[in-house]
Amino acid sequence: MQGRALRVAVLGCGVVGTQVVRLLTQLRSDLASRVGTPLELVGVAVRDLDSARAGVDRALLTTDAETLVENADIVIEVMGGIEPARSLLLRAIASGASVVTANKALLAQDGPTLYAAADAAGVDLYFEAAVAGAIPLVRPVRESLAGDRILRILGIVNGTTNYVLDQMATEGLDLDLAVKQAQELGYAEADPTADIEGYDAAAKAAILASLAFHTRVPLSSVYREGITAITADDVAWAARTGHVVKLLAIAEQTDAGVSVRVHPSLVPVGHPLAGVHGAFNAVFVEAEAAGELMFYGRGAGGAPTASAVLGDVVSVARHRVLGGRGPVESRYADLPLLAASAAVTRYQVRLDVADRPGVLAQVAAVVAAHGVSIDAVRQAPQLVPAETPAAHALAHLIITTHAATDAALSATVAAIAELDSVTRVVSVLRVEGA
Amino acid sequence: MQGRALRVAVLGCGVVGTQVVRLLTQLRSDLASRVGTPLELVGVAVRDLDSARAGVDRALLTTDAETLVENADIVIEVMGGIEPARSLLLRAIASGASVVTANKALLAQDGPTLYAAADAAGVDLYFEAAVAGAIPLVRPVRESLAGDRILRILGIVNGTTNYVLDQMATEGLDLDLAVKQAQELGYAEADPTADIEGYDAAAKAAILASLAFHTRVPLSSVYREGITAITADDVAWAARTGHVVKLLAIAEQTDAGVSVRVHPSLVPVGHPLAGVHGAFNAVFVEAEAAGELMFYGRGAGGAPTASAVLGDVVSVARHRVLGGRGPVESRYADLPLLAASAAVTRYQVRLDVADRPGVLAQVAAVVAAHGVSIDAVRQAPQLVPAETPAAHALAHLIITTHAATDAALSATVAAIAELDSVTRVVSVLRVEGA
Repeated sequence: MQGRALRVAVLGCGVVGTQVVRLLTQLRSDLASRVGTPLELVGVAVRDLDSARAGVDRALLTTDAETLVENADIVIEVMGGIEPARSLLLRAIASGASVVTANKALLAQDGPTLYAAADAAGVDLYFEAAVAGAIPLVRPVRESLAGDRILRILGIVNGTTNYVLDQMATEGLDLDLAVKQAQELGYAEADPTADIEGYDAAAKAAILASLAFHTRVPLSSVYREGITAITADDVAWAARTGHVVKLLAIAEQTDAGVSVRVHPSLVPVGHPLAGVHGAFNAVFVEAEAAGELMFYGRGAGGAPTASAVLGDVVSVARHRVLGGRGPVESRYADLPLLAASAAVTRYQVRLDVADRPGVLAQVAAVVAAHGVSIDAVRQAPQLVPAETPAAHALAHLIITTHAATDAALSATVAAIAELDSVTRVVSVLRVEGA
Repeated sequence: MQGRALRVAVLGCGVVGTQVVRLLTQLRSDLASRVGTPLELVGVAVRDLDSARAGVDRALLTTDAETLVENADIVIEVMGGIEPARSLLLRAIASGASVVTANKALLAQDGPTLYAAADAAGVDLYFEAAVAGAIPLVRPVRESLAGDRILRILGIVNGTTNYVLDQMATEGLDLDLAVKQAQELGYAEADPTADIEGYDAAAKAAILASLAFHTRVPLSSVYREGITAITADDVAWAARTGHVVKLLAIAEQTDAGVSVRVHPSLVPVGHPLAGVHGAFNAVFVEAEAAGELMFYGRGAGGAPTASAVLGDVVSVARHRVLGGRGPVESRYADLPLLAASAAVTRYQVRLDVADRPGVLAQVAAVVAAHGVSIDAVRQAPQLVPAETPAAHALAHLIITTHAATDAALSATVAAIAELDSVTRVVSVLRVEGA
């Protein structure tokens, strides 16, 4: 049953690419037996032949990516960025190659073009590594749950921000220090914008939502809010009220349509996502019949990402040997995409208020007047002793609401801020997973 | 692209079967679009036409399972037990149907016969629901991780025992009371033997190990120890030393071969498996490149199991429409299966010892003499005040070892028990996931 070897080309030889090459080499015989025929690495496209790549045979390197992809059965794209990755993938597809990519930015921005091209050419386009690194998510969501209805996905899909928030929670660091520490440990880039502003999570949320709801979710319709406004105080108060702060990618389907958003969220400590520490990722799925599921693992890194890539390579290679194709992404329904303001969730609002009787009642009345229902109110001394004279002492009021729309909540908060007894709206955070 | 409808037969109409019928009916149009053609439910085989089945059209019921399976494209087996399930599945396969089963007992006992029959007939045999209910595990393990090397699997694969142990830990119940409570809540059968003696977990461990290591693991080679010897005292001491007690299914591959075992284990509180509460299941996978992964969800119940079954139905139906086949299980390597005594793990040994100087040193010397290395020793007063006179007061000694073989540990414990100063070996538990 060992037929002609399949010719495999790798585009890009950075952190992930070198690990892909390592696994292709080290697991050669295992891969051949799982595929049914050998996988022959025919070349690795790089920009510059002279940069050193540990463990990669220099004879495999080429700068002529175009020729490489046109002579391969399987093209693995781990170069990242939009161009030339897109053109090379389209060229590979056009010449009949099956393609595997880890490129979340490209898929979030222009996935439909690639999916349509693959569908038209009758080849596989696999992208497990683009969603949550090593965590198997694409197969579970689009195959294992294909006979169920996914209601909601809550994902910790960015390891950098999870590391930062976890350090803030466990070490009491403020954001800047935690980011600095993440940079020193290699968990954050020198320019951490893509991570801490939520751009990376938003790209993954778009891909995840498309998969989960079999619809087209352009990146531009994903509401995005990063963690830059989160303070040590927010994290400390979260703990006091039985929560942890997590940056969540959220995709929900209701009768009205699909809502996709990325923002910091308060997660109850008993929720499985609350126990996801350090740079780990996890995706929590609620399905109608399956109930609650969670997938946990490393969302980034050379070897973990390469593992996901190689799993895809085995799948597409098996299809070339045995026939068949994976699920096709271009056959979408086009469900309505809801604005983030339509999302209905619980909120926790923290206020500095005058420390005198009646303030709580006054605030509660304003909340009720806006049709927002209160789950709990807690009044507490401020964490740091106020330096104001006793006559002007402030108290801290923490209001947790039942589910409300973003619009209703915004109007409520604006009205609260107008009250004489309210000195400051300290923070407004969504509560998810409760 | 809507071709001929695929004829679907369901064998069994119990808790899972009724949910399978419900999903096939309610999600009819979603399923048709995901498969590419409608799925037509042609019959549900039952033993007795008269028993009521909520929501199942009585016109679909039949007692003639043989004729039903011979006239179906896809046969779903959710009747359980060895016979007639096996004969019916073999008959379905022989007549060219693709089959989906949730029957862990059958697969653990006679999987290879079924896999070989399906391979010979060129049809799919899918069984996601047989391993951990709703948790997608089969696709992740045999497809997503096909380009990696799985080193070890630690699974909480039995919801009943996890519920019982969790109640013992959180409510301080003893085993009998916790089992009784589980029975009242429907988490445990009237006869809980299959769960609490580890038989159910052992069947799942055999299937999981076969998948993970691409080898044949007969149920008879799985070491099995249930939770009946676990006391409230064990659970309380586990907490005091930073652990929780879990019944784990463990499958490991080393250079020497594959080891598969089921036994109560101490899991460090920081480990992701320690946070799996109630009747939930979770499977923790360590792979060479992917690192640590965990899959969490409901391991049993009608709707969750039906979700897994339907996911498989969509996969095998797609193959019938679009061509192709899933991975074939009959192509095994035959790796050496190691006895449980060869397993190397850490242990925690609790002893009642005479409360006098020098005992700790004496015990430590015996441990060292057997080549077992001590990680930590803790000496503590007993939890319950000893009723013996002060002159004969007992202390409690908790020894945690570094990794040792079962054989070395057994010899060590036997020698410790001989010491005059040791009144009783209270418990010996393995520590996993550390």
